[in-house]
Amino acid sequence: MLNLFEIDEWKIIENGFTPSKQKQAESIFSIGNGSFGQRANFEEKYTGDSLQGSYVGGVYYPDKTRVGWWKNGYPEYFAKVLNSCNWIGINIEIDGFQLDLNTCEVKSFHRELNMFEGTLKRSFRCVFQNGKEIEVKSIRFCSMEREEIGAISYSITPINFSGNVKFSPYLDCKVMNHDSNYDEYFWDEDFHKIGIKKGIVCVKTKKTNFHVATAMRISFWKESELLDIHPNLVEREFYVENNFEYYLEKGVTHTLKKYVSVSSTINHSEFSYATIALNRVTKAYINGFDMLLAEHKAAWANIWSNSDIKIEGDSASQQAIRFNIFHLFQTYTGKNSKLNIGPKGFTGEKYGGATYWDTEAYCLPFYLKTAESKIARQLLVYRHNHLQKAIENAEKLGFKDGAALYPMVTMNGEECHNEWEITFEEIHRNGAIAFGIYNYVRHTLDEQYLVEYGRDVLVGIARFWAQRFNWSDDKKSYVMLGVTGPNEYENNINNNWYTNYLAKWCLTYSLEVENKFAKDNKVLLRSGEAEKWQHIIDNVYQPKKANSRVYLQQDGFLDKEQLIVSDIPQSELPINQHWSWDRILRSVFIKQADVLQGIYLFEDHFDKETIKENFEFYEPKTVHESSLSPCVHSILAATLGNKKMAYDMYLRTSRLDLDDYNHEADEGLHITSMAGTWMSVVEGMAGVRINEEGLFINPIIPETWKNYSFNMLFRGNPMTIKITQNTIEITNNSSSEIEATLFSEKIIIKSKETSNFSFNLFI
Amino acid sequence: MLNLFEIDEWKIIENGFTPSKQKQAESIFSIGNGSFGQRANFEEKYTGDSLQGSYVGGVYYPDKTRVGWWKNGYPEYFAKVLNSCNWIGINIEIDGFQLDLNTCEVKSFHRELNMFEGTLKRSFRCVFQNGKEIEVKSIRFCSMEREEIGAISYSITPINFSGNVKFSPYLDCKVMNHDSNYDEYFWDEDFHKIGIKKGIVCVKTKKTNFHVATAMRISFWKESELLDIHPNLVEREFYVENNFEYYLEKGVTHTLKKYVSVSSTINHSEFSYATIALNRVTKAYINGFDMLLAEHKAAWANIWSNSDIKIEGDSASQQAIRFNIFHLFQTYTGKNSKLNIGPKGFTGEKYGGATYWDTEAYCLPFYLKTAESKIARQLLVYRHNHLQKAIENAEKLGFKDGAALYPMVTMNGEECHNEWEITFEEIHRNGAIAFGIYNYVRHTLDEQYLVEYGRDVLVGIARFWAQRFNWSDDKKSYVMLGVTGPNEYENNINNNWYTNYLAKWCLTYSLEVENKFAKDNKVLLRSGEAEKWQHIIDNVYQPKKANSRVYLQQDGFLDKEQLIVSDIPQSELPINQHWSWDRILRSVFIKQADVLQGIYLFEDHFDKETIKENFEFYEPKTVHESSLSPCVHSILAATLGNKKMAYDMYLRTSRLDLDDYNHEADEGLHITSMAGTWMSVVEGMAGVRINEEGLFINPIIPETWKNYSFNMLFRGNPMTIKITQNTIEITNNSSSEIEATLFSEKIIIKSKETSNFSFNLFI
Repeated sequence: MLNLFEIDEWKIIENGFTPSKQKQAESIFSIGNGSFGQRANFEEKYTGDSLQGSYVGGVYYPDKTRVGWWKNGYPEYFAKVLNSCNWIGINIEIDGFQLDLNTCEVKSFHRELNMFEGTLKRSFRCVFQNGKEIEVKSIRFCSMEREEIGAISYSITPINFSGNVKFSPYLDCKVMNHDSNYDEYFWDEDFHKIGIKKGIVCVKTKKTNFHVATAMRISFWKESELLDIHPNLVEREFYVENNFEYYLEKGVTHTLKKYVSVSSTINHSEFSYATIALNRVTKAYINGFDMLLAEHKAAWANIWSNSDIKIEGDSASQQAIRFNIFHLFQTYTGKNSKLNIGPKGFTGEKYGGATYWDTEAYCLPFYLKTAESKIARQLLVYRHNHLQKAIENAEKLGFKDGAALYPMVTMNGEECHNEWEITFEEIHRNGAIAFGIYNYVRHTLDEQYLVEYGRDVLVGIARFWAQRFNWSDDKKSYVMLGVTGPNEYENNINNNWYTNYLAKWCLTYSLEVENKFAKDNKVLLRSGEAEKWQHIIDNVYQPKKANSRVYLQQDGFLDKEQLIVSDIPQSELPINQHWSWDRILRSVFIKQADVLQGIYLFEDHFDKETIKENFEFYEPKTVHESSLSPCVHSILAATLGNKKMAYDMYLRTSRLDLDDYNHEADEGLHITSMAGTWMSVVEGMAGVRINEEGLFINPIIPETWKNYSFNMLFRGNPMTIKITQNTIEITNNSSSEIEATLFSEKIIIKSKETSNFSFNLFI
Repeated sequence: MLNLFEIDEWKIIENGFTPSKQKQAESIFSIGNGSFGQRANFEEKYTGDSLQGSYVGGVYYPDKTRVGWWKNGYPEYFAKVLNSCNWIGINIEIDGFQLDLNTCEVKSFHRELNMFEGTLKRSFRCVFQNGKEIEVKSIRFCSMEREEIGAISYSITPINFSGNVKFSPYLDCKVMNHDSNYDEYFWDEDFHKIGIKKGIVCVKTKKTNFHVATAMRISFWKESELLDIHPNLVEREFYVENNFEYYLEKGVTHTLKKYVSVSSTINHSEFSYATIALNRVTKAYINGFDMLLAEHKAAWANIWSNSDIKIEGDSASQQAIRFNIFHLFQTYTGKNSKLNIGPKGFTGEKYGGATYWDTEAYCLPFYLKTAESKIARQLLVYRHNHLQKAIENAEKLGFKDGAALYPMVTMNGEECHNEWEITFEEIHRNGAIAFGIYNYVRHTLDEQYLVEYGRDVLVGIARFWAQRFNWSDDKKSYVMLGVTGPNEYENNINNNWYTNYLAKWCLTYSLEVENKFAKDNKVLLRSGEAEKWQHIIDNVYQPKKANSRVYLQQDGFLDKEQLIVSDIPQSELPINQHWSWDRILRSVFIKQADVLQGIYLFEDHFDKETIKENFEFYEPKTVHESSLSPCVHSILAATLGNKKMAYDMYLRTSRLDLDDYNHEADEGLHITSMAGTWMSVVEGMAGVRINEEGLFINPIIPETWKNYSFNMLFRGNPMTIKITQNTIEITNNSSSEIEATLFSEKIIIKSKETSNFSFNLFI
C-alpha cells in the first residue's frame, strides 16, 4: 500500500476524503507534546469507522491479564494506556442536521499534518441533507511550550445560505478502551462543573486512582471580531457542553476557539490538579490562540534545529525521516522522569505499558544526539526510580540479595505483560538498560551520573546475571538456560549468544565502574562478589559454529533446517500471518536482529571479517517481522559498505507506517522503531559514533540520494553534517571548536565554520 | 490432610457435618454411570459453600480461549464440560422455614458412598429455627443398568411434632459454570412442560446446539402406602416444580421418590430426545424405585466380579483402590463411542475437554484387563472417528498428505486447550494413541480391528512423525525440535528422548503392520513412503549420557544444575506452588515420568541394568507434581524388586483424592490417574503383563500387606490372582484352561480351579 497519503517534505497531506483510510489517518496525523496526545479524530461528530483516542502520559489502568492457565510469577495485570477525555469535541448542527462526514456529502477535503510547525489542519466543504453547504477550516495543536495546553480554531463559512448554525463544544470523559480485556469502563467521575463559555470534567482511574482534569474555555469570533454569546449549559456525569445557535451570513466566516488544559496527578497533587487545569486554561484563553500558536511553532523550530535530517533527491525518504523525528518528539520531551516512550506513543492504545527495552536500545541513541543531555538523562533516572521494583520483580522469580530484573513492559516499574515466554525469559532487556547507562556516559562523559545513580542500577543488574548463569558440569562453563532472545521467534532457548554476551559485558562493565568509583564513594559490592563475577566473566559459554567466525544464536541452532528467506514462497510471508506458532518456533527464521543486535551494540569488539561473516549468515535468515529489525541490519550493512542493502533496509523501516506495510497503522504508529530509522541515517549512512574518544564519522551515501544532511549535538555542541555524492561538509554551529575523526583522519572544525572534505581523499 | 473421611473397605463414610469439607465431599461422594453424573450436592436447599455440578457425557460448550496474545494456530476455544440441569432438587419447608443445613441446627449427620452397590446415602437429624426437629434419610443413584435414569428416595420423619411439611421437587436448568472464562450462561431453553407429579425441561447449548432433556416423575409414600397428592405447579424459563404440603404425624416416615431421565442428542435425534426422556422416566416410575435399585446393584456386582482388588492388612489401601476402580467405572462404561474419560469425570468442571492422552496411556490398560474387550475397543473407535479432524489439526500446523496430529485435549476431535506450549508441542500424545492400538491388539489379538480401523490411524500418526522429524546436517541424524515431553516442567525442548523414541516406534510399528496387511487389503502407503520412514527409523537421534546407560531427557539436560528433590527445602514443595514458572522450567526437576514413561511403555526393549540406571538417575529428580507420575515409578520400582519404593509410590497415588494431598479435591477428582493406581497394583505389585506371547506374572508384595488379590480378565477369561507373603494363588473362573508364565515358569490353570505356588520356589 504505497504512498497512503501525499508526499511533501514537511507535511503529510490527504486530499479527498476516503473513509476507509480514516483510522490509518487518525494514527498518522496524530498530534502530541510529550505530555498528552490526540489521534486525528474529527472535532465534529463522525459516525463512520474511527478509533477515538486521547491519551495522557503516565496514566494507565491495570487491566486483569488474560492467561490460559495462571502460573506462579505471572504478572497480574497488563497496564493499559488509557483512552481519556475527548477534549476536541465540537458538534455542529444546522436545522437539526448534524455535521457528520459519514452522512453529509463531502465536496472537498484537505487534511495536513504540518511537521515543521506541529499543527493538524483540516479544510473541507460539505453539503447537509437539506442542501446547505458549508466550508470548515480547523487547526489544532498540543502546545510544545505549555505541556498541559491544547487549542483548536474551528471556522465555518456558509457557502450557499445564510442561517442559524448551532455550535456545541463539549468535553466527554465517558470513553472506553477498544482494547479492554473484559470490556470494562476504566474511569470514575471525580466531579464536573459548568459555566458560561467554560467547563471542567475531573475523572479518576479505577484501581490506580490517577486523577485527570480536562478544562475548557471557548470564544467565538466573526472574522476578527470577538462576539458575545449566551450558551446553553448541558451537563451530566462525565460530560459538559456549552451550546449556542448563531446566525451566520453567507460567505462570512465565524470561528470557535476552544482552549483546553489537561492536568493530571502525574504532575500535581490530588488537591490542586483541578485548580491548576482551570488556571492554565484561563491563562491560555487570555493569551489567545495566536500567541499560543506562535510560541508552539517556535518550540518546534528549536527542536528541528538540533534534529532535522534533510535528504535531497528522494522526497519519500525525506518526508519519512521527518515524520519519524516529528513523532518521536511528540511522544517524549524529557520534561518528566515519570514518563517514557510507549511503543504507540499517543497514537493508539495497543500493546499497553509505556516502557520496553526499545527505549534504551533505540530511543536513547536518538535523544543522545538530537537533544540536550538532560533529556536522555531523564530516561535513565526513570529506570533508577524503578530499581526497587526491579529488585522485587527478581525476588518474585527466586533471585535474591539485591539482584534486579527490570520488567519487559512497565508503567510503574512492575511487570505488566501477558506472556511467560516474554516476561520470564526475554531477560536481555536487563542488559539493554545497563548498556543505556554506558551509552549515556560515553556520549556525555557525565560520570557524576554514574556515581549518583548509574552504579546502583548496574550492580543490581549484574547481580541478576551472576545468579542467572549456572555452572554446567557438562560444558565446564557458565551457561544461561531458558531465555528468549531479541528474536522472539524462539522461546525458552539455552545459551542465546546475545544474552550471554550482553550479560557478561554487564558484569564486566559494572566491575570496571566499581573498581573506578568504589574507592572514593560508597562500597556496593559484598565480599567475594567481585571474584565470583570475574569467574563467570572468564568462563561464560558462547556458542560458535565450528571452523568459522559465526556466533550461534543459541544451542542447537544448527539442528534446524538451514533455509533462507528466499526459500519461503511469497504467499507465505509474513510468516507470522501464515504459519502456526510452533512452525515458526522450530524454523530457522529470525524475527529481528539477535546475534546481529549484539554485534551492532558492541561493534568495536569485533573485526570486520567477523561482522561480515555473521551478517552474511544471519541476514538471509531474517524475516524482519519486527519493526525494530531492519534499522540494525541497515546500520551493519552501511558499516560493511553495502550501500544497496543499507538503503533497502532504511526504506523498509522509514515508511513503515506512512505506507502501512504491516496493515496495522490504524491501531497506532510504531513510535520506538522510528528512532531506529533515524539511527539508520545517522549511525548507518553517516557512520556517526560517539564514545569516550570522541566523534567518529564514516559516511556512505545511497546512489539515489543527491545529498543528505542532519543536525545533531556532540556533547552539547550543535553541528550539521551534510553528505553529497562527493563531499562531506561539516558545520560547527557551536561556540566551541569540534574535534572529530573522519574515516580515520583527525579533523577540527572551528566554531561557526564549515569544513568540506572530498570522499576521494579517503576512499 | 490424612483420612478426610472414615475408612471402610467398601464405603466412604462421613459422620458429623463439617461445612468446610462440603466441597471435597461433593467431589468424593459423586455418583455417575458413564452417561451422566452428579456431585454429592444436597437435594434440599443449601446456602453454604458448595459447587453445584451435574454433568452429561459428551455435552460441552466451546468457551472462548483466554490468551495474552493470539498467534496462528492457537485453538479458538476451550471446551468446557458443562454444569447441566439440577435434577436432584427437592426443597423442604416447614412453617415457612427452609430446610438448609447451613442455617438449621444439625444434630446428627451421616453420609456414605456405598461403592459395592453404587449408591449415595444420607441420614441426618436437624432442628428448624422454630424448634421442630426432623430426621431425613435419602438414597440416590445413577442407574448402571439404564444409562439415562437416576432415582432418589427422600424420607422425612417428624421427631418432636406433627404438622405440615412442604415438599418441592423441581428441575432447574438455570445453572452456570463456575469455571466460565467470561461469566456467560451456556444454555438456552428449548421448551419446558409441567404436569401433575411430572415435568420436563429441555435446554440446548449455545454454539454447539446439544439438546438435553431432563424429565421427572414423583410419587409420595406414607411408609409403604402410596399417597394421592395434588401438587401446585410452578414453572418459568429453565424451571419446573411440583410442590405440595402434607400433614406428617410425629414419628411417621413419609417418602418422596423422584425419578429422572437425562436424555440428550448425544444419543438421540433433536426430534426425539424429549419424547425418549419422557418415555424412559415413565417406565422407570412404573417399575419403581426398588426394582431400579436392584438391577443397579446387580450391574455393579458384575463390574466388581471382573475388577475388584482386595488388600488385607491395610484397610486404607483397600478403601483407596476400590474408590479408584469405582470412579473409573462411574466415568466410563464403553457403551458409547462418542464418550471418553475426562480428567475430572463427572465430579467437577475443571480442565474442560474429555479426552487427554491419559486415556490411552493409563485408562486403556485398566479397561483391557477389567472389562470385556469391546469396552476398550470403543476408546479406540473414538479416536478413529476423530482421524479426519486430526488430519485437519495437523494441516493447521503446516503438515500435509494425511499426516494426523491428535489434539492434546478434545471433545469432538478438535484441539481445545489454551496453551501453545501444550497444544503445539506436547505431541507425544500422538504416540500414546498409536501405542493404545498396539496395546489393545496384544491384549486381545483382535487383528481385525487393525485391518478395519487401526491401520488408518497408525499411518496418519506415522506420517506426522515422518514430517515432524527434520534432518540435522550438524548431527547427521533426524532430530525433533520444539517439543514438550510428558514432563511439562520443560517447554519447547529439542530431542526429547521419550518423544523421539515413541515416534520412531510408531514409524516402525506402522511399517510392520503395513507389511503384514497391505498385501491382502488396501495399500495405504504411497510410493517411497516406506523407504523414507525406514531412513528415519535408522537415523533417529537419541540423546544419551556419555559412558552410561542413561538416556537424556532432552538436549542440554546435563547443562542444568544437577540437584535432587531432597535438595529442595520442604517449605518450597510442591515447587509449582512456590517457584516462578521460569525457575521451574530451567531447573532439573521433573513433574512426571518422562524417560521413565518410555521405559515403562517399552519395558521389554531394555535390559534390567538400563532400567535400573535410568530409574536411579531420574527418580531422585522427580517431584511427582502430576497425579499421573507416581504409578509409573511404582511399577518400575516393583519391576526392579524395590518393594518399599513401589509401596510408597502406590500410596502417593491411591489416596490422592481421599486424603486430598494436593488441596484440590473440592474441584473434582483425578479420574484418569485412578487407572494408574490400579496399574500400580496389577502391573506393579503383581507384575502382570499381557502380550502376544501370553500372560506373565511376576509378583511382589509390600511388607505391610497380609495379602492382596484381584479379579481380572485375560483374553475374556475371568480369573483371580491372590498374593500372600508366601504364596501366589491363581483361580481360573472361566470355562477354558489358562496358560501363563509365573516368574519364568510356564503354568497351566484348569477351568474353575485354583493353583497355589510358593514364592520360595521362585526366589
